[in-house]
Amino acid sequence: MNNFDYQNPTRILFGEGEIANIKNAIPQGAKVLVLYGGGSIKANGVYQQVVDALAGFEWLELSGISPNPKYDELMPAVELIKRENIDFLLAVGGGSVADGTKFIAAAAKFEGDDPWDILAKRAPVTDALPLGTILTLPATGSEANGNSVVTRGTDKLSFNSPLVYPAFSVLDPTTTYTLPARQVANGVVDAFVHTIEQYLTYPVNSPIQDRFAESLLLTLIEEGPKAMADVGKPAEEQNYDVRANVMWAATLALNTLIGKGVPQDWATHMIGHELTATLGLDHAQTLAIILPSLMNEQREGKREKLLQFGERVWNITEGDESTRIDATIAKTREFFETMQVKTRISDYGFGAESVDKIIDQLERHGMTKLGERGDIDIAKSRAIVEAAV
Amino acid sequence: MNNFDYQNPTRILFGEGEIANIKNAIPQGAKVLVLYGGGSIKANGVYQQVVDALAGFEWLELSGISPNPKYDELMPAVELIKRENIDFLLAVGGGSVADGTKFIAAAAKFEGDDPWDILAKRAPVTDALPLGTILTLPATGSEANGNSVVTRGTDKLSFNSPLVYPAFSVLDPTTTYTLPARQVANGVVDAFVHTIEQYLTYPVNSPIQDRFAESLLLTLIEEGPKAMADVGKPAEEQNYDVRANVMWAATLALNTLIGKGVPQDWATHMIGHELTATLGLDHAQTLAIILPSLMNEQREGKREKLLQFGERVWNITEGDESTRIDATIAKTREFFETMQVKTRISDYGFGAESVDKIIDQLERHGMTKLGERGDIDIAKSRAIVEAAV
Repeated sequence: MNNFDYQNPTRILFGEGEIANIKNAIPQGAKVLVLYGGGSIKANGVYQQVVDALAGFEWLELSGISPNPKYDELMPAVELIKRENIDFLLAVGGGSVADGTKFIAAAAKFEGDDPWDILAKRAPVTDALPLGTILTLPATGSEANGNSVVTRGTDKLSFNSPLVYPAFSVLDPTTTYTLPARQVANGVVDAFVHTIEQYLTYPVNSPIQDRFAESLLLTLIEEGPKAMADVGKPAEEQNYDVRANVMWAATLALNTLIGKGVPQDWATHMIGHELTATLGLDHAQTLAIILPSLMNEQREGKREKLLQFGERVWNITEGDESTRIDATIAKTREFFETMQVKTRISDYGFGAESVDKIIDQLERHGMTKLGERGDIDIAKSRAIVEAAV
Repeated sequence: MNNFDYQNPTRILFGEGEIANIKNAIPQGAKVLVLYGGGSIKANGVYQQVVDALAGFEWLELSGISPNPKYDELMPAVELIKRENIDFLLAVGGGSVADGTKFIAAAAKFEGDDPWDILAKRAPVTDALPLGTILTLPATGSEANGNSVVTRGTDKLSFNSPLVYPAFSVLDPTTTYTLPARQVANGVVDAFVHTIEQYLTYPVNSPIQDRFAESLLLTLIEEGPKAMADVGKPAEEQNYDVRANVMWAATLALNTLIGKGVPQDWATHMIGHELTATLGLDHAQTLAIILPSLMNEQREGKREKLLQFGERVWNITEGDESTRIDATIAKTREFFETMQVKTRISDYGFGAESVDKIIDQLERHGMTKLGERGDIDIAKSRAIVEAAV
């Protein structure tokens, strides 16, 4: 096992009805800015629960944070915060709202010239407004980590700081009953790939981390299709535990615990970001496209973990090693397809002409040494993307 | 899954050489009191590492915190803290030193008449000195939770407060190389039983919590005997990863994560405490005695989880349900015996005459509704203890 430094201070309020408890989790007397995306939280009753819970607070709201949150949409919030002396940010929605709110929290306290430097120049975050989240879309894990991804033009960039861990996050599974199929599917695929990226590398004799990762993968494989089968059903026909298990899995997939002490490989995410930036694909779609191709290209370096993943998660024990690895990759691709997420660039109406654009972006962003060994150079990324067309 | 409220702010510095990093984890300028037990940390080099790491701090030390830390031994530390204006406590040792230090941290800030009330009357802890730990004995999980158990006479009582979570804990597996067999064995048994007590209840459709618990049990079963085989060997012949995996398992067994959202049954610990208080047995010995007997007495209420535990952890799939449950209990007892921890009261030289004393204590401490359903009354506790003689 490798040395590690782990700390995750985020308080998790989990279960039906927990939104009401934010009144005890937000500092008394704080002036709150509520941030959200579109109108879905008004349609499903979450907005009203937030309004009720904030009865004792002075608060303002700002809507319109879009998927893959845009720098230009976020900066007006920073102005509002300064003008209105906001003390606490409350993000209500999915990972994009949480990510956008984290950037706003850091930008509001940034002392340099241009907060974009936090993303583009890795300018250090030395202070941030405190924030909480109410999660309505299990996927990114942003509700329990210090990560944030923000987009400006075709630059989709990230930062990480211990100062933007949410003080609390509310996970009420009933808020996910009204999600459309595409968001349920994308969330499960995102959480699955987060887990894989902290697991499918090379062995370092870390049985707990391995088994925790396998626990999440098995649960997502069992519960993901059940959640899809419930899409569109009224609340009384929903399976609460299925939604609860998907939600808790997504948080644990990226609250940083399972990746401590083990190698990590975030190449799928890094390449995937460029597919979103250049082709406009959903984040999870890009992961479902890149991961099977990457598993195949990296089958030598990942051999032992691919075999373990095949055996423990997919129950693949027959055939020689190469056959088992092929079957493992096929099963992974099949799972994404079962979740109604297509796994090839051509499935989305793009062809070989997109490869150069994606690779140019990757190079421009300095992503030339990806993978757990830093051996995914531009040539290898090109091979991965070409094989994914 | 049940609703839950989870937060664990403790920072974990894990790995060889991490003791040196406490200099960055203790607040600059703090006046530190180092607390430890006997001389083992001087013999194994940990004490010198602490001295080196504290070079930039003003600090004092207090040794002599004994196993099952005694109230009367701890109170002089409270006086010292007030007299010397101590700002930060550093516990170096096993769970007893951590538990004792937590009580001292709370007692030093207690505003009532008698700090014993924190334990005996559940007086609320409203403030506590900050503390860190350097763990040298993986077992109790005290390094990453808010629990503390303190003994006074034949009263072995506990308290819990979010204010006594360690700010940080250093887990350096090499510090465990010199542990004697009895401590290695006791630690593995303690961590195993902690996990069982948050797992072996009744199903609530919580596949992640179940699998995380099974991950820890499987790891302890694999690694525990390997650690025993390395006892007494020089450092260069030790298996670092074995010690690392045992250490991380013990922390995760009681950092409260695996028990969130599921029923819990701490009857084994509660009854076990009275065996320590009346017979003077090691804490883990009492658990190894009580658990198999409790599993048998509670086999109806725990039926589904006993079968799951048998199948997933012990690979028991043959025979009818009753046969499989018998085999599961036998395997659990066998594991404790393999770890050189005997599983019957009579193995330690006591007989049926001890039952009344144990049960009287349990009744005096109000432990009349134990178990995940509160159905372990005094009669049932008596049956459990009698069957364990």
